[in-house]
Amino acid sequence: MTITFVDIIDYLGTFAFAVSGIRLASAKKFDWFGAFIVGMATAVGGGTLRDVMLGQSPFWMTQPIYFAINGFALLLFVFLHKQINRVSNTIFLFDTIGLGLFTVVGIQKTLDAGFPLWTANIMGMFTGAAGGVIRDILINEVPLIFRRDIYALACCAGGIFFSWGITEGLPLEACTIGCAMAVIIIRLLAVMFHWQLPILHDSEDEKKEEDKPENQ
Amino acid sequence: MTITFVDIIDYLGTFAFAVSGIRLASAKKFDWFGAFIVGMATAVGGGTLRDVMLGQSPFWMTQPIYFAINGFALLLFVFLHKQINRVSNTIFLFDTIGLGLFTVVGIQKTLDAGFPLWTANIMGMFTGAAGGVIRDILINEVPLIFRRDIYALACCAGGIFFSWGITEGLPLEACTIGCAMAVIIIRLLAVMFHWQLPILHDSEDEKKEEDKPENQ
Amino acid sequence: MTITFVDIIDYLGTFAFAVSGIRLASAKKFDWFGAFIVGMATAVGGGTLRDVMLGQSPFWMTQPIYFAINGFALLLFVFLHKQINRVSNTIFLFDTIGLGLFTVVGIQKTLDAGFPLWTANIMGMFTGAAGGVIRDILINEVPLIFRRDIYALACCAGGIFFSWGITEGLPLEACTIGCAMAVIIIRLLAVMFHWQLPILHDSEDEKKEEDKPENQ
Repeated sequence: MTITFVDIIDYLGTFAFAVSGIRLASAKKFDWFGAFIVGMATAVGGGTLRDVMLGQSPFWMTQPIYFAINGFALLLFVFLHKQINRVSNTIFLFDTIGLGLFTVVGIQKTLDAGFPLWTANIMGMFTGAAGGVIRDILINEVPLIFRRDIYALACCAGGIFFSWGITEGLPLEACTIGCAMAVIIIRLLAVMFHWQLPILHDSEDEKKEEDKPENQ
Repeated sequence: MTITFVDIIDYLGTFAFAVSGIRLASAKKFDWFGAFIVGMATAVGGGTLRDVMLGQSPFWMTQPIYFAINGFALLLFVFLHKQINRVSNTIFLFDTIGLGLFTVVGIQKTLDAGFPLWTANIMGMFTGAAGGVIRDILINEVPLIFRRDIYALACCAGGIFFSWGITEGLPLEACTIGCAMAVIIIRLLAVMFHWQLPILHDSEDEKKEEDKPENQ
Repeated sequence: MTITFVDIIDYLGTFAFAVSGIRLASAKKFDWFGAFIVGMATAVGGGTLRDVMLGQSPFWMTQPIYFAINGFALLLFVFLHKQINRVSNTIFLFDTIGLGLFTVVGIQKTLDAGFPLWTANIMGMFTGAAGGVIRDILINEVPLIFRRDIYALACCAGGIFFSWGITEGLPLEACTIGCAMAVIIIRLLAVMFHWQLPILHDSEDEKKEEDKPENQ
């Protein structure tokens, strides 16, 4: 079994996702086991949901490498957390590249399973973004990507590029690479320029506050 | 592809469920993307769990209409939230009719997959009520239907009517319509007359409070 | 249909898991329905996740006995909660024995589905421990087993014994019984001697606290 360039990106992305879960677990005073599970859920949770919805067993059930990467991330965090926190820009880059790759993998697996392009886009976004939602549920926080940042939308944009490329007859390689690049670039730009989606305005709340100032 | 009367009820129910998710997401200051996902999870979450348990891919993966309805609900909420809040009785009615229909759909899909009647009843309840539980998990609240209101039990009652009808040899149409009607009527009566299930009494807590009044 | 010794252990374990869910639901002032669902999720949630990942419909969908046991646990709790709280050592014992059995069942089902030993170990742990995580998500608490106690690790240890036995050519019965015994003994020792995993240390938090003492 040879390890390809895509595999290496996959493993770096998995590592970065795992570190993000482990870091938040440590902020919640989880023990090593809890941190391992949260790291694993962050790294493979999106792909697990995708595979179950596609009617397949989760990809990690036949590939122990994902457990090894997560265990490695945990050990690094335990013994070298200061150093890890110092290279958080590097880890952010791995995370972003991983997001691009995970989106592409999700799109391709869904197309391979016979679903239409728009479903593949949704599943690409799921693969990239659902792990972070599962992570936030496990640490009992409101999912971060529902409140701030362009994250899942970067996956959507990549998916739209992919669909456009396929429809225009571009070669699959170009669609794939372009999709991943679109995810990565939009995510980087969003972080650099603090792009945010509008918050949903809830007029009723305001009205209630106006009407009943006596309630606190 | 013709749109039947049942489809229209399905779409209205989906719309009402989506609005319920979007409204709660807006109270939590989610951004548009977060609100879209919570709306979608509320509307199709129950059916998704059902389909995965039945060993099928979720129904919405081949039907973009559910995304369109949810997107429409989000746009309406963004631009016309005051008007939506003003017609909340109408939306409650859609929600209730949708609950009845979702229950029936869940029952029939489970029977079609070869499971017994009692399993179909459970799955009918799942289809109707699990979306709201997923919604509450995503907004990091204790699920509302575990604490108040007759909601899932209305689905159960409908399922029991369905089972009774099938066992008595009533035609399938009668069982189906009767089941949906039972769900709708019981839900309406429960809201009108503030029917509640008893809260589980926790004697140990009380005892602790008696024993240790110094703790707060 | 004869009921075997293994069935009886299975039912006692299910009962103990259900009581754990119902008890926590009652501390959160859930109503009867909410308590029933939380009890059920605690008792069958781990096996449900396992079955879905193995591409099978959840085991309880063809076995109403699990609903009956859960309903029985709820009724007992409603009418005899003081007595139940008084025999909590007995229930802890059922819970522990159940944990051992659930681990073995998870391992065997995964091997039967054609997965390798290490995947079976993971699924054994899932079967035993994931129900408690789902329970804690439903009551909106940080999962207990991520913060304290040796619980899922006892399942892992049992799985490692099982794998060792199979690799050494021990008869399946010996592996099975040894695995369950290992889970039970380690769990009991962990509770008796207050074994804990280390908490993940978060140096950045401390640093923040040192740097900014004015922020509370």
